[in-house]
Amino acid sequence: PSGEQQLNNPLLDHREGQMFLTKAFQVILEEVLCKGTNVQEKVCDWREPEELSALLDLELRENGEPEDQLLKRVQDVAKYSVKTNHPRFFNQLFSGVDYHALAGRFLTEALNTSQYTYEVAPVFVLMENEVLSKLRSLVGWTQGDGIFCPGGTVSNMYAMNLARFQAFPEVKTKGMCALPPLAVFASQESHYSVLKAAAFQGIGTEQVFKVKVDNRGCMIPEDLGEKIELAKSQGAVPFFVHATSGTTVKGAFDPLEPIADICEKLGLWMHVDAAWGGSVLLSKEHRHLMRGIERSDSVTWNPHKMMMTGLQCSAFLLKNTTDLLKQCHCADATYLFQQDKFYDVSLDTGDKSIQCGRKVDCLKLWLMWKAIGSKGLEERVDRAFAHVRYLVEEMKKREGFQLIWEPEFVNVCFWFIPPSLRGNENSPDYQDRLSKVAPTIKERMMKQGTMMVGYQPHSGRVNFFRMIVISPQISNQDMTFFLNEIERLGNDL
Amino acid sequence: PSGEQQLNNPLLDHREGQMFLTKAFQVILEEVLCKGTNVQEKVCDWREPEELSALLDLELRENGEPEDQLLKRVQDVAKYSVKTNHPRFFNQLFSGVDYHALAGRFLTEALNTSQYTYEVAPVFVLMENEVLSKLRSLVGWTQGDGIFCPGGTVSNMYAMNLARFQAFPEVKTKGMCALPPLAVFASQESHYSVLKAAAFQGIGTEQVFKVKVDNRGCMIPEDLGEKIELAKSQGAVPFFVHATSGTTVKGAFDPLEPIADICEKLGLWMHVDAAWGGSVLLSKEHRHLMRGIERSDSVTWNPHKMMMTGLQCSAFLLKNTTDLLKQCHCADATYLFQQDKFYDVSLDTGDKSIQCGRKVDCLKLWLMWKAIGSKGLEERVDRAFAHVRYLVEEMKKREGFQLIWEPEFVNVCFWFIPPSLRGNENSPDYQDRLSKVAPTIKERMMKQGTMMVGYQPHSGRVNFFRMIVISPQISNQDMTFFLNEIERLGNDL
Ligand SMILES: Cc1ncc(COP(=O)(O)O)c(C=O)c1O
Ligand SMILES: Cc1ncc(COP(=O)(O)O)c(C=O)c1O
Repeated sequence: PSGEQQLNNPLLDHREGQMFLTKAFQVILEEVLCKGTNVQEKVCDWREPEELSALLDLELRENGEPEDQLLKRVQDVAKYSVKTNHPRFFNQLFSGVDYHALAGRFLTEALNTSQYTYEVAPVFVLMENEVLSKLRSLVGWTQGDGIFCPGGTVSNMYAMNLARFQAFPEVKTKGMCALPPLAVFASQESHYSVLKAAAFQGIGTEQVFKVKVDNRGCMIPEDLGEKIELAKSQGAVPFFVHATSGTTVKGAFDPLEPIADICEKLGLWMHVDAAWGGSVLLSKEHRHLMRGIERSDSVTWNPHKMMMTGLQCSAFLLKNTTDLLKQCHCADATYLFQQDKFYDVSLDTGDKSIQCGRKVDCLKLWLMWKAIGSKGLEERVDRAFAHVRYLVEEMKKREGFQLIWEPEFVNVCFWFIPPSLRGNENSPDYQDRLSKVAPTIKERMMKQGTMMVGYQPHSGRVNFFRMIVISPQISNQDMTFFLNEIERLGNDL
Repeated sequence: PSGEQQLNNPLLDHREGQMFLTKAFQVILEEVLCKGTNVQEKVCDWREPEELSALLDLELRENGEPEDQLLKRVQDVAKYSVKTNHPRFFNQLFSGVDYHALAGRFLTEALNTSQYTYEVAPVFVLMENEVLSKLRSLVGWTQGDGIFCPGGTVSNMYAMNLARFQAFPEVKTKGMCALPPLAVFASQESHYSVLKAAAFQGIGTEQVFKVKVDNRGCMIPEDLGEKIELAKSQGAVPFFVHATSGTTVKGAFDPLEPIADICEKLGLWMHVDAAWGGSVLLSKEHRHLMRGIERSDSVTWNPHKMMMTGLQCSAFLLKNTTDLLKQCHCADATYLFQQDKFYDVSLDTGDKSIQCGRKVDCLKLWLMWKAIGSKGLEERVDRAFAHVRYLVEEMKKREGFQLIWEPEFVNVCFWFIPPSLRGNENSPDYQDRLSKVAPTIKERMMKQGTMMVGYQPHSGRVNFFRMIVISPQISNQDMTFFLNEIERLGNDL
């Protein structure tokens, strides 16, 4: 029971809070950013789940804890987390740290607002527009629309939903019941978000027709034509082609021009999932990989991957200029989007979104861009390609490394063949034994904490490594280290 | 063209970056956290969009900028952003700052990982489980499942999708074409995310049957029964009841026990959208508002609202223990979720999600909870109720304030009746004139920057204010200020 006296004393002391935050900042600087990016330190300090649980003392209790204890917790969380900023983290489609982006992220967190109205996010509404327009201009569009989404999967979902709405506006009110069965087309190498989208949006995963790829992993346009015929013959209505620029495993770029020809001819929505590959648009040397992109209807592009803004930052870009986003997603909530506001309410973006509250994801990208300019971003992309060329040349000099494809992008897929397997390609248990090499090396590297790289079985091939090279903070020495380390960890297998 | 020499020098200097970050942190501390929470400073420095655009110089250019310029930009972004941490920000369902949560957010940003596998997020996989289990225990479940989502709208979408999948598992592969028309039930006061979900998931907004509410804004269970009959008579199959604990405008709590009776009897999924109201579960005194919650199948609860963790933090909680989340959402991506990993792969949460990369949203809540304990959280909730009681009493003492409902929760909805309108309730233009009062006061307060509170027309009532009282950093003086300020801004109208 709080007496009136008590209600005059705020529960929270700002000075104390700010002192804690300052101390926590120091710990973060030291543990995550200094140690975490130091090659002398581990990429991860691997623990079994039970042990880690005990170390972290995760339980939430009745009473709070003193400051020292809390700072120790900040330190522990840092200590046992994977250092994705570390120069030897090659495990994901993100890595490294950009300090300007990180400053933008801290600022975003401190300001804590939602992107939905100009009223509560004046700076960010304007900034999001500017950043999206810049990204669109790289796609080759002078007009259009767009929105930042909580990840590329959600961006891809936006595309599928808009395409469906444009073809069948009644779907919004009446649902899929009022529609014929629909058909979606994506390559065999497309990201699994296509399936997630089709399931979530009530289209059904069986309505996703997988188009064949060539030996580089690129969609074969002729097969797209055939799959469209197949879908029609099964009574489904084609409406959406999902091409990929930069596939997840191989880093392949679908040929956009012939795909666009087909989409134009048949009146299908052409979406390009460039979540991973989109950043090549920043480079004069490499943007040809996405030739034809301006002919698409929509694009997903994740700056949180190759551009290093940090999670989450995914742009959904749209060519349409008829307010399709708003028409498709609006729910006209009067409590947020009053029409008698004293400013231009078309600045309120909430009705474009499938969300309500929406995190500010544009500031980190904007601040980084201001810091290094389009030139600096281009240099990073070119640098990543150059690192990959170096890595590939080095691999070719070493006996144990077998490239699976010549990389078109910054995914380097390879097998490590331990000495005991070399020359035994024809023995009956070769594939079986090879399939066990990557998991064993991975386990060893994790437990020693020296580096991280991913592996997977894929399209009929047994487990192989997929090394991702993006961070501008790495050097050729890190590549050499990587190759040596794989040999060290795998030579006895 | 990068020569080999060049490739040995990282593009990015960590020391320089860390120095910039440290300076940016100081600016954030000063501008956002010190000034931004100081009642002597403005809540917002309102500018017209054109002027603000020019002030911010948003354009992204070829070349980067020097450090001083960038720090100035950090400062400008802070200066022109709304201070949602300010004690006089009452505009949204979030406000205030918790410094422990904020430290957790900085740490999250610095660590920059994705929640999808134990491999890259060992600490956060375990931590998310712990936090979700704690929230579930407050709901009254000893078992279950759950996931953090990018907002309450997405959490609500999860509920609708799981309910549909449980009733019709074939929907995942075959889509809604294979299903009869479905029917969803939610009150007239439910959040618009129900409509967004029904549209996005291909169910259709017309399949959402709006159930009548009583004069406090709570769902009338008898009408739910009738709407279910109505839906059936129209050939639709009821599968999902969306109840609300804490409605967006009125703060009403639907009666969960009788709703659960109906759902149990008819075998319908009962979801409770407690995005806003869920935090009453922390309070022994107020948790009765959600009596019956343990009988629901799923719950949405947004700690980023009343619990002040900061955006985004939304928990989707599930009673089911048969791995429904995974079955419904998995897409079996071999590149992430290899089955031959050296640890227990059931720890990889990616297949539970509709996303791929997923931001870490649990750490801020966990750290705050560790800092103040369940007790501290309870105290905050109780304090907010106490502030509301005080505010309401004060309003009753003043002639110009007309409460629209006695608040059950921390939403205080009222009209301000300027002197010129008092006693004129029966004049023909009264409603029309009253409807213009709130927008005018709002414009004035924004332009003067003294405070922020929202208004809306709602369920037949012309524009009224909705004041939200949650932040533990406010005091009764802030309430008094608020009332005085409304009078000052509106007395001449
Ligand atoms: C080609 C492609 N598309 C979409 C995605 C999904 O992006 P997100 O993880 O941001 O959801 C990925 C993620 O790796 C991807 O590789
Ligand atoms: C009752 C209710 N449910 C759901 C939501 C949506 O939450 P979010 O903004 O996190 O999407 C809100 C937001 O205000 C709400 O009030």
